[in-house]
Amino acid sequence: MIDVQGQPDERNIPLQKVGVKNLRYPITVLDKKNKTQRTTATVQLYADLPHHFKGTHMSRFIEVFQQYYENLGMPRFLSMLDTIRESLEAEDAYAEVSFPYFMEKRAPVSGEKSLMEYTCQYLGQVTRTRRDFYVGIQVPVLTLCPCSRDISDRGAHNQRGIVRVRLKLGPFFWIEDVIDIIEHSASGGLFTLLKREDEKEITEYAYDHPVFVEDLVREVCVGIERFAEFPWFSVEAENAESIHNHDAYAYLERGDRSLGLID
Amino acid sequence: MIDVQGQPDERNIPLQKVGVKNLRYPITVLDKKNKTQRTTATVQLYADLPHHFKGTHMSRFIEVFQQYYENLGMPRFLSMLDTIRESLEAEDAYAEVSFPYFMEKRAPVSGEKSLMEYTCQYLGQVTRTRRDFYVGIQVPVLTLCPCSRDISDRGAHNQRGIVRVRLKLGPFFWIEDVIDIIEHSASGGLFTLLKREDEKEITEYAYDHPVFVEDLVREVCVGIERFAEFPWFSVEAENAESIHNHDAYAYLERGDRSLGLID
Amino acid sequence: MIDVQGQPDERNIPLQKVGVKNLRYPITVLDKKNKTQRTTATVQLYADLPHHFKGTHMSRFIEVFQQYYENLGMPRFLSMLDTIRESLEAEDAYAEVSFPYFMEKRAPVSGEKSLMEYTCQYLGQVTRTRRDFYVGIQVPVLTLCPCSRDISDRGAHNQRGIVRVRLKLGPFFWIEDVIDIIEHSASGGLFTLLKREDEKEITEYAYDHPVFVEDLVREVCVGIERFAEFPWFSVEAENAESIHNHDAYAYLERGDRSLGLID
Amino acid sequence: MIDVQGQPDERNIPLQKVGVKNLRYPITVLDKKNKTQRTTATVQLYADLPHHFKGTHMSRFIEVFQQYYENLGMPRFLSMLDTIRESLEAEDAYAEVSFPYFMEKRAPVSGEKSLMEYTCQYLGQVTRTRRDFYVGIQVPVLTLCPCSRDISDRGAHNQRGIVRVRLKLGPFFWIEDVIDIIEHSASGGLFTLLKREDEKEITEYAYDHPVFVEDLVREVCVGIERFAEFPWFSVEAENAESIHNHDAYAYLERGDRSLGLID
Repeated sequence: MIDVQGQPDERNIPLQKVGVKNLRYPITVLDKKNKTQRTTATVQLYADLPHHFKGTHMSRFIEVFQQYYENLGMPRFLSMLDTIRESLEAEDAYAEVSFPYFMEKRAPVSGEKSLMEYTCQYLGQVTRTRRDFYVGIQVPVLTLCPCSRDISDRGAHNQRGIVRVRLKLGPFFWIEDVIDIIEHSASGGLFTLLKREDEKEITEYAYDHPVFVEDLVREVCVGIERFAEFPWFSVEAENAESIHNHDAYAYLERGDRSLGLID
Repeated sequence: MIDVQGQPDERNIPLQKVGVKNLRYPITVLDKKNKTQRTTATVQLYADLPHHFKGTHMSRFIEVFQQYYENLGMPRFLSMLDTIRESLEAEDAYAEVSFPYFMEKRAPVSGEKSLMEYTCQYLGQVTRTRRDFYVGIQVPVLTLCPCSRDISDRGAHNQRGIVRVRLKLGPFFWIEDVIDIIEHSASGGLFTLLKREDEKEITEYAYDHPVFVEDLVREVCVGIERFAEFPWFSVEAENAESIHNHDAYAYLERGDRSLGLID
Repeated sequence: MIDVQGQPDERNIPLQKVGVKNLRYPITVLDKKNKTQRTTATVQLYADLPHHFKGTHMSRFIEVFQQYYENLGMPRFLSMLDTIRESLEAEDAYAEVSFPYFMEKRAPVSGEKSLMEYTCQYLGQVTRTRRDFYVGIQVPVLTLCPCSRDISDRGAHNQRGIVRVRLKLGPFFWIEDVIDIIEHSASGGLFTLLKREDEKEITEYAYDHPVFVEDLVREVCVGIERFAEFPWFSVEAENAESIHNHDAYAYLERGDRSLGLID
Repeated sequence: MIDVQGQPDERNIPLQKVGVKNLRYPITVLDKKNKTQRTTATVQLYADLPHHFKGTHMSRFIEVFQQYYENLGMPRFLSMLDTIRESLEAEDAYAEVSFPYFMEKRAPVSGEKSLMEYTCQYLGQVTRTRRDFYVGIQVPVLTLCPCSRDISDRGAHNQRGIVRVRLKLGPFFWIEDVIDIIEHSASGGLFTLLKREDEKEITEYAYDHPVFVEDLVREVCVGIERFAEFPWFSVEAENAESIHNHDAYAYLERGDRSLGLID
């Protein structure tokens, strides 16, 4: 059977990325408390394609991923990219894996336990000149508006916000610790299960700790810089403003920006 | 050229609905203030298919829709369904058209003007036994939690919520009037453009008018029943709780439920 | 601390559904081959609210769900609804749980193994008059157009389609068996990992087994009626037509339609 | 009333972007055939925030946008960013506006007319060192697999794909012309309204013009380079593979990559 993909191409145009997108697969990642966690992922896997080849061999990406999905902690991610480079005979390999991550959380007063969902992302590229691994962490939080509080005789508008951090590694770290930094930078963290005494505590704490999206990304920045030294990181916050139909947004990054072809 | 769709089918299975889905088209609808409004719609158009036909003629749905999209106010919607029945030689016809609808709004104190987006929906079915037209209206609102307010020494959690009303007609009415009822049933309406004096007013008003999702749907219900007599309607509210990562939900309906195959 | 939710309500409006929506949680379901499967779910849990209560107690829904999530096979679903009724002191309880479900599949010629994702859904209502359990199964398939094939000198347009089946139980059954019926009713099932010899086989098989969306839902209907006796079921198919920017759609249902307040 | 946002900030952390996200607004853009087109947009507007300010003034973004939405062709976009810089007293301004764009299209044989939806995007940044304007164009197409065709005795799998082009300007150009290049680089363009004679023509043309995603992005690249000289552009293609449940993907870019903080 002829190898159509392997045929020569005359257009002389190299492609930076070719591969599979929106692959859905179960994966197992590391978990600080329970050692491992089984979850479900959305996966992108790419390699470069030199100008002289007509096409890539898409099935090899799947074959490589199958060797890794049952144990896909941070330490194994770049090794998966090495295997893609070998298998595809490529110079560059890229991957992005996004997944819900669940953590047990206790309500602040009642101590009631429940699970909270966070969204995580591994991103990596191994090329001629780079060997980069990024971890993305998305955390929903409570934000209370300092302006609304200070100008109003009673109450203050507050809402659900989302904080997204992307960290370039650097040393291994636990996702749980960065989630903790983010939740302590907001007017409060969110919970799945709360009793009335918890609701009172959270409401009053938020009123006493108002943050703009601008404050929020700055506080997270301070917390991350205290936590560990990452060569680069970004923080963004997005508030589903309870008085507007659009969102308030803030973004910062620190360190040396050179993302290459990561996203 | 043979008519494959028109061939007989031996399986003896009639289909309730066959047609086109997720068609995107510009449409023009009626506007209380500006007479007409040009917007962009997502469209579903269906007819039934008797057991003895293999397939329907999909292109005819598009041909019919093209006769209506430039003037698609409520009064013309059922007439479009009549045309589908004729054109497809069908017993039953169904349509659903969803679109963003923009209204000018003034901030409560400063009077600053801006446009707000609402989402509307026309749904209809014309069958042997029915001739039903429904209008759906989705309005984002501010809700402040009565429990949080009453148990806390300061503040109260509040958030963006969404109210969805579906009304079975009944007489012609203006979407604008139902939006008004919904916004006055919540702790507040949302705005695109607010100055500080507006923010103060909205914050304090919300603190003085707390509603659970349960209160919200009941208030909307009272308002609609006062406004006009619809043979059936439903109201649902969904709060993006600012202390939880999930939503609070309430649903009610009034009148005689017999939705047929309206989705 | 006062119980605001438990206070009386004077508006005299009962609510059909009140509860939590878009809760995200890990769950464990039954798996024909591996006994159990751990996956991630999106959850809705509702109860009715009599006219004389101001609000429901949202945290109780979470407390009930926590008793069930680690073992949520079909047989336990209605029992969860019974527990919701008790805990909320409600007449009616409703739940909807949607989740990706992964199955190992072998390529048709090479026999290469990989995992495929399907989307499943449990829906249930326990009310004064009903005790209904529905299972939804969504399967992506390949469909090749009979008309395009018959009128063209070479080739035929084909595309990815989605089939959604909803079955009212009836006896316990394995999701895997219904997936099998659906894939055999299409021009072909989809695969995560294929080699060239598989691609040839699938291409030719599809060309020899063309189906309209109308054929597809009828074939699935025939297959389900042969498989088991369900008191009611529906089948819908949606083709991402490769020659259009909209989708082709077909829907049928069989049996006694009385869905109550199941969505 | 105090200006909370204008207060000093001691954390010494400048923010690259602060502003409003997911604003929904009607806009009017230029149209090659009809002069102007009214459509609905999703809008992001940002400015930088120096380290010594606590917060930005979000309402000013809306005030600026209101001056531009009724006439937002390419030539006016950077001028809107200039106005944001002035109004916010910022060094840097960023904007992203995405919208459906409708074009009349004729079926290839029957000549039947209908409207097709494309998705467009304006992106810009005006900073101390840049004055960049990008246009994004997303076009759905038909792709037929060369490998499947060559190895199979009959038929070939084909599917809907999406091509996304992002062009850095450069001279003014018509979106319509780039859409044309993209549709001619695929196995075929898509249509809203087709008769049988059109379907035959499209099916056979696709069979005679197979493309991998790799071919598709290369063909578009050749077409764009022939069309005009852009300082930088990217092309990506994503196939909803009709034999897989994941997508095939290819990406290339040409010219000098230095996207700054354009997302």
